[in-house]
Amino acid sequence: MTYCLAITVDEGLVFASDSRTHAGVDQVSTYGKMHTFGCDGDRQVVLLNAGNLATTQAVITQMRRDRDEKAAMNIDAARDMGELAEYVGSLNRAQGAKHGRAVARAGFSADATFIVGGQIGQEPAQLFLVYPQGNFITTSGHTRFLQIGEAKYGKPILDRIIQPSTSLDEAALCALVSVDSTMRSNVTVGPPIEILGYVRDSLRLERYRCLKEDDSYLIEIKRAWNEKIAQAFAELPTMEWASLSSQAGCA
Amino acid sequence: MTYCLAITVDEGLVFASDSRTHAGVDQVSTYGKMHTFGCDGDRQVVLLNAGNLATTQAVITQMRRDRDEKAAMNIDAARDMGELAEYVGSLNRAQGAKHGRAVARAGFSADATFIVGGQIGQEPAQLFLVYPQGNFITTSGHTRFLQIGEAKYGKPILDRIIQPSTSLDEAALCALVSVDSTMRSNVTVGPPIEILGYVRDSLRLERYRCLKEDDSYLIEIKRAWNEKIAQAFAELPTMEWASLSSQAGCA
Repeated sequence: MTYCLAITVDEGLVFASDSRTHAGVDQVSTYGKMHTFGCDGDRQVVLLNAGNLATTQAVITQMRRDRDEKAAMNIDAARDMGELAEYVGSLNRAQGAKHGRAVARAGFSADATFIVGGQIGQEPAQLFLVYPQGNFITTSGHTRFLQIGEAKYGKPILDRIIQPSTSLDEAALCALVSVDSTMRSNVTVGPPIEILGYVRDSLRLERYRCLKEDDSYLIEIKRAWNEKIAQAFAELPTMEWASLSSQAGCA
Repeated sequence: MTYCLAITVDEGLVFASDSRTHAGVDQVSTYGKMHTFGCDGDRQVVLLNAGNLATTQAVITQMRRDRDEKAAMNIDAARDMGELAEYVGSLNRAQGAKHGRAVARAGFSADATFIVGGQIGQEPAQLFLVYPQGNFITTSGHTRFLQIGEAKYGKPILDRIIQPSTSLDEAALCALVSVDSTMRSNVTVGPPIEILGYVRDSLRLERYRCLKEDDSYLIEIKRAWNEKIAQAFAELPTMEWASLSSQAGCA
C-alpha cells in the first residue's frame, strides 16, 4: 500500500509520501514515491505515485526519456500544470494498458495513480490527481488537498486543520501527522516519510525533509501527538447515560 | 454506508452505531442499526448491522420468529455467545444466498455483516464480527474492538485510546468520537448515534444514549473535540526543513 497527499494553501504547496511498497505481504520493500523534476527559476514539478510499481517506474522513465530527447511533449515543454497533468495521464494510461491484461490474468492490477503538482513560470501553482484512465481532477476553494493510496485514516486531521490561510509549515506538519496516523493504523504504509514544501511563485524547491523511522523529530512528533490526543480526550465533557426503554421479548 | 463498532474493556462492552442508510445517493434514509435482545438477569444480546438492509431485516425477523416459536436454536436457547454467533452466521449466510444472485444481477450486493455481542448467564461476555459467509471472529487481548462498515476514519482514535483498563464510560466516549470523526469525513454515515454500555456480569442493559443531530451534548463534543485537536496540533514542535539535494536535469 501507499499513502501520498498534497495540500494547497495560500502560501504554497505541500507534498508528502510514505516509502513502503509490497507485492503480497511477504515481499515488502522501500521505494521513495516522491519525484521532483524542475529547473530553478523556470519550473518545479513534483510527482507522487500510488499503485502498480512497474507502471509507475515506466511512466517516470518515459518522462525522463521524453525530456532528454526533447520530445514534442515533455516536462520542459509543458506550458502549464494542466498540460503536464494531461501528459502524465496519457503516459499512465498507455503504460497501464501495455501490461494490463497480462497483469490482470495473474490476479493483480497494473493501475497506477499520481498526484502531480508544482508551478510553471508565471502560470498558477496547481495540484492534480491523475487516474489510471488518464483523466484528472484538481483542487477547489473547498477541497484543499488530494490523497492517493490509503487515504482514509489520515483524512480527519486534514479535514479539521487545513484552511487556505494555514501556513506552509503548518500544512507540512499536518501532512506529517496525517501520514503518521496512517502508519499507525496500516502496516503497509511506512517510513521514510518525505515532505516537501513549495513556496508559491518561488520556482525553487528549498524546503524538504526525509524522516527515517529512527529520526528523533519523527519519534518526538509521534510521542507528543499521542500524548496530546490522549490529554484532549481526557478533557472532553463526560456523557450522561439514559435508560434503554424497557426490554422487549423476555422469555 | 454505515459505521458500527463494539469495544471490550475490563469493565464491560460498548456498542455504537450510526443510523444512515442509502441505496444510491438519492435514496438516503434513517434506520437504527442497533438491536437489543435480552432478558434481565438471564442474557443480554446486542446486534449491530452493516450492508444490505433487506438481508439485515430478514435476519433480525428470523431471529425474532425463532425465539417466538421456540425453535431448536434461538436467542434464548444459545448456551454462550459463540453459539449465538454461529446461529447469526447461519441465518446471515442463508438470507444472503436467498436473493444473492438476483441482487448481484442488478449490480448490488446482498451481503450483510453483523457485530453480535453480549453475555449469556455465567458464560463470558464476548463480541463477534459475523461475515456474510457465516464465519466469524472475536476480539483478543491485543485487539479490543471490532468495526463494520466505514471503519477507517474512526480507527486511529480507537488505536490510541482503548486499553483493557479503559473505563466503560471512557470507551463509550471514545466510540462517540470515533463515530463523529467518521461522520465528518463521510456523508453517508450520519446521526442519530446510538451508544450502549454493558457492565460485565450485570446481565442488564442500563446505559444507553441516542444522540440526534441537534443533541446539545453531541454538538458540544463536536465543538470541543475540534477545538482541542486544533490546540493539540498548534502545540506540536515545529519541523525544521533541510535542503533537497541539488535538482537533477535542468534543461
